[in-house]
Amino acid sequence: MDITIAIDAMGGDHGTRVTVPAAVAYLKKHPDDTVVLVGLPDAIEAELSKLGFADRTRLRIHATTEVVGMDESPQSALRGKKDSSMRVSINLVKNGEASACVSAGNTGALMATARYVLKTLPGIDRPAIASFLPTVNGQVCMLDLGANVDCTAEHLLQFALMGSTLVSALEHKEQPTVGLLNIGSEDIKGNEVVKQAAELLQASDLNFYGNVEGDDIFKGVTDVVVCDGFVGNVALKTAEGVAKMMGGFLKEGFSQNWFTKLGALVSMPVLKAFKHRLDHRRYNGASFLGLKGIVVKSHGSADSFAYLCAIERAAEEARGGMLNHISEHVEKWHHARQQTAGEAL
Amino acid sequence: MDITIAIDAMGGDHGTRVTVPAAVAYLKKHPDDTVVLVGLPDAIEAELSKLGFADRTRLRIHATTEVVGMDESPQSALRGKKDSSMRVSINLVKNGEASACVSAGNTGALMATARYVLKTLPGIDRPAIASFLPTVNGQVCMLDLGANVDCTAEHLLQFALMGSTLVSALEHKEQPTVGLLNIGSEDIKGNEVVKQAAELLQASDLNFYGNVEGDDIFKGVTDVVVCDGFVGNVALKTAEGVAKMMGGFLKEGFSQNWFTKLGALVSMPVLKAFKHRLDHRRYNGASFLGLKGIVVKSHGSADSFAYLCAIERAAEEARGGMLNHISEHVEKWHHARQQTAGEAL
Repeated sequence: MDITIAIDAMGGDHGTRVTVPAAVAYLKKHPDDTVVLVGLPDAIEAELSKLGFADRTRLRIHATTEVVGMDESPQSALRGKKDSSMRVSINLVKNGEASACVSAGNTGALMATARYVLKTLPGIDRPAIASFLPTVNGQVCMLDLGANVDCTAEHLLQFALMGSTLVSALEHKEQPTVGLLNIGSEDIKGNEVVKQAAELLQASDLNFYGNVEGDDIFKGVTDVVVCDGFVGNVALKTAEGVAKMMGGFLKEGFSQNWFTKLGALVSMPVLKAFKHRLDHRRYNGASFLGLKGIVVKSHGSADSFAYLCAIERAAEEARGGMLNHISEHVEKWHHARQQTAGEAL
Repeated sequence: MDITIAIDAMGGDHGTRVTVPAAVAYLKKHPDDTVVLVGLPDAIEAELSKLGFADRTRLRIHATTEVVGMDESPQSALRGKKDSSMRVSINLVKNGEASACVSAGNTGALMATARYVLKTLPGIDRPAIASFLPTVNGQVCMLDLGANVDCTAEHLLQFALMGSTLVSALEHKEQPTVGLLNIGSEDIKGNEVVKQAAELLQASDLNFYGNVEGDDIFKGVTDVVVCDGFVGNVALKTAEGVAKMMGGFLKEGFSQNWFTKLGALVSMPVLKAFKHRLDHRRYNGASFLGLKGIVVKSHGSADSFAYLCAIERAAEEARGGMLNHISEHVEKWHHARQQTAGEAL
């Protein structure tokens, strides 16, 4: 299946300096796919000529005149910048010219614009942000990571359904296990929303594992971990903070004197493998799930390797037919629920 | 100031095997303090004679007949076990025979019993669980870590006040900085409760820094980080999970073959210092704040070194006159608020 990816070339802290090399790298890896670079043509052309990439058979520039700032409010981006690289990238998905889009632009503006342009899938109340994190034995899909600060139990169920479908589409797992993030494994723990969500999940056709706690995320206890966006965002950033602190401690320790530097030298293969295993760039690319189109958000500070990973994620979602899978899953579930309600009458 | 600490000798996964050696180690370090070991006398005596510790001038055994199970419900512990080592330890604080108590028993039962026996301080609606975590440049006091899953803005303000007082008492800082855990540093971010809490904190006499995010906890951005118990518990366990995973990756990497083992050998001082810096045992001892008495909860699986750290924490709180400080702080704040309300009329 040939994929066309729209890339918001201007988004992120580094704009075209990162997005254009990543797009070119993607094209070299995927000889059947096409990329549309959306943004200020001069900036894009300059970067392409720097890279010496002249082939235009699978690369197209879509000129726009505006750029959404990294600190710009969602309202300002949505109302004031109809010709922004961000907005037009999403438009290309909407009108079928692209299978998916990627942006490293600001999360609030991207979510608001994507939601406005693409709308949510039938049966989904709110889109959620999902990302993969490393675990001791692979990776885990966690959502929501910040789109929804207040959630109902029904929202959490919808997140579970979408996360489960994402893992199925990307990892080809039949029935991914779903954990509900809570503060204890017992059923009586947690707040009312989480308790109700556990009941809904139990009654659903998802492979519900039960409650999981913060440390279970990284043990790889389940394939999917579901929580509201406030808790998910705090957990994600806490994890990043601890990883950074520990990495810093190691670096500090190994660079103290000639003896510790010798240790680092001898341990180079171990330290390199350690760094690779936890390399957050490999996990770059958060999926906006629940929209009628595939939108992947790259970290604003991503380098071109990280950005390439985000493009890969978007392409995999398109190739895996994720949107259809979510729609089918939601429909099946609504149908089953209506039947149960009918029987109850 | 001579301190008497009541120790729930039976609590925790290992009971007297951990609590008694830790108590003896504490007495050796603090020649003026006294310890009351509360629990089944035979088990305590057996452990003491194993240690060859016969001196009873500063060590007293307080016999009880019951033990609260690690999985026992708070209700069952509270109603059914009035002569448990946990309950009686708290009673000793209540009637002034001990300055503080320590237990590694189950958190729910300990909090319910402590709250029932000691009651909350005037002006404090709910007790909170506070603990210290390592940061890049020291440590941070975080609360609530799981006592309150649903909080109002007013509760978060009270937590801030108590956390700030705890840091003042233990670290002798004049005006500890307080951060409010949120999902963005901007004022508009977060849920309604957090936004209201920010306003209350801004208007208080606390040294309010503003919003902090998950990764800021470990950067040591503030001395105190405040959040509701659901978010705090998830963040704490997430941090533990990441630290454990990273430690495991390192261990695995260094034990792969003779070359990596050589690397570990040469790097021993660095790896040892790294382990020490993150040693969770040094941070053992969560304070139950807001009660009319000092109660410190040790991790259930603590070893005797970790348990000793929890006893030290309890003693420091008593020595620092923490309860008086909290009471004074709350009173001052209520007074200021009433004045403001009076002026507004």
